[in-house]
Amino acid sequence: MVEQAPEARFELPIRVYIEDTDAGGIVFHAKYLHYMERARTEWVRSCGVGLRAGLADNISYVVQRLDIHYAVAARLDDELLVTAEPVAFGRVWMDFRQRVLRAADRKVLSDSNVRVACVALDTGRPRRLPENMQELLARNVQPIETINRTSQE
Amino acid sequence: MVEQAPEARFELPIRVYIEDTDAGGIVFHAKYLHYMERARTEWVRSCGVGLRAGLADNISYVVQRLDIHYAVAARLDDELLVTAEPVAFGRVWMDFRQRVLRAADRKVLSDSNVRVACVALDTGRPRRLPENMQELLARNVQPIETINRTSQE
Amino acid sequence: MVEQAPEARFELPIRVYIEDTDAGGIVFHAKYLHYMERARTEWVRSCGVGLRAGLADNISYVVQRLDIHYAVAARLDDELLVTAEPVAFGRVWMDFRQRVLRAADRKVLSDSNVRVACVALDTGRPRRLPENMQELLARNVQPIETINRTSQE
Amino acid sequence: MVEQAPEARFELPIRVYIEDTDAGGIVFHAKYLHYMERARTEWVRSCGVGLRAGLADNISYVVQRLDIHYAVAARLDDELLVTAEPVAFGRVWMDFRQRVLRAADRKVLSDSNVRVACVALDTGRPRRLPENMQELLARNVQPIETINRTSQE
Repeated sequence: MVEQAPEARFELPIRVYIEDTDAGGIVFHAKYLHYMERARTEWVRSCGVGLRAGLADNISYVVQRLDIHYAVAARLDDELLVTAEPVAFGRVWMDFRQRVLRAADRKVLSDSNVRVACVALDTGRPRRLPENMQELLARNVQPIETINRTSQE
Repeated sequence: MVEQAPEARFELPIRVYIEDTDAGGIVFHAKYLHYMERARTEWVRSCGVGLRAGLADNISYVVQRLDIHYAVAARLDDELLVTAEPVAFGRVWMDFRQRVLRAADRKVLSDSNVRVACVALDTGRPRRLPENMQELLARNVQPIETINRTSQE
Repeated sequence: MVEQAPEARFELPIRVYIEDTDAGGIVFHAKYLHYMERARTEWVRSCGVGLRAGLADNISYVVQRLDIHYAVAARLDDELLVTAEPVAFGRVWMDFRQRVLRAADRKVLSDSNVRVACVALDTGRPRRLPENMQELLARNVQPIETINRTSQE
Repeated sequence: MVEQAPEARFELPIRVYIEDTDAGGIVFHAKYLHYMERARTEWVRSCGVGLRAGLADNISYVVQRLDIHYAVAARLDDELLVTAEPVAFGRVWMDFRQRVLRAADRKVLSDSNVRVACVALDTGRPRRLPENMQELLARNVQPIETINRTSQE
């Protein structure tokens, strides 16, 4: 039932600190969303694009929906690896598959699908992904998936 | 596109503070999971059961999976209403439908399904829901749904 | 050694949730700063002034310095009372004495002094407190303290 | 008024993520306490001692008091350096001087003194610092300061 993950193209190492844990002795479930947001940010940065630099240009990114399955709890002092793999994108959104792994044995602690939408910072309305982000996604997402999913937009 | 919600049996009022917001000017998406956890806790408490009192008896509750759709962003100073409606349960789990509403106009800001599992605090292994929690769920969940979903366990 | 507090003019009730605790079984120490910020906000709101409404007028408030002494740890499910007593103010700042009490026995869990500065939202530079805030402070701070402390500015 | 810091013996690099910021566009003031806690943890780890490994031996560490001065606000995407310098210790406590710097120009964003106490995890009562921690502190704290401050205990 506990799954091990193959190496992903992008994995952000994250250490679990006391601030992340709760009185149940494990990482508080909402914290995984923080970890995944950091990994998306660092993936984009690693590709030479500033995800948040856009705030100055009235561009913001918001999570539109996500699902997450928690398999094994992360604990204090654990070293985690958080993946961020773009799997599809449309004119105003991008979908990521993201896993949180325990670095020591690559056990999958959580598995998630996240849709991030590009919005205007002032109005909150959807807006077209910036050129450089579209190019980045086009280089990293399998063409076939893009075609299938774009129709959902 | 923006939906208004009818009155739910349980609604926890929550105020948005500066700590909940981010530089995008809206509530950080992971915060909704905090709000929902508070609402589940207060629903159980309102029924006379201490959700977390169980820690002393080696009982803990963990989120096993959830999906959430974010429709409209909550903002600083907003007054929210967070629902927590049990919709199904099995021997070791309970499912909730949870919405975050803006109190002023009852607009649905987010809609979510959350499965919470009962585990042993020390081992993290699934364990049977305590009697009083089972009775509470039996009184609050439509029987037909329980029957259908229990088979998923 | 453990002190009990007399009734303060303003006390915000706050419940401790699992999100506030850490693997040490107590409330994470930084969370008290959240509680105190909520209490300052609600004190101002209770006086009919919107502390954060100012964001639209390029006014923001930032904590400039604080000291805090932690006497007794808050725990899961505790009901707290958080005070926010303005004790002095100058042209651009206001000082608060703030305590976190356990509601059940009014034990003082933490005691703190917080200086909040008024700044321009865009530049972050200090700016004069708005009229309505100055009036509010003048009505609530003992004149003698104001005089003494203003010279620190 | 804005100060630059010389190189410290221990500096933890920390990136500011969207989760750390608030609607004022800056890092929420309580987050600095998280950053400092991470730096203390990593300093201890870098010395070969597991700060939190103690939980299994009924040892926990709690912040007993702190003061912090915020000089310049950290912002989204900033790279920070967080110092953790032990400056004194007693039988049951250790004092740290901690600064948060902006990596780009070593500007001091905040300056803080933090007292951490060693407590029994179950009772919360003060207990003697473990041997390896005492040795670590003895090697890193100037003797003269230790002598002076121990008398405060």
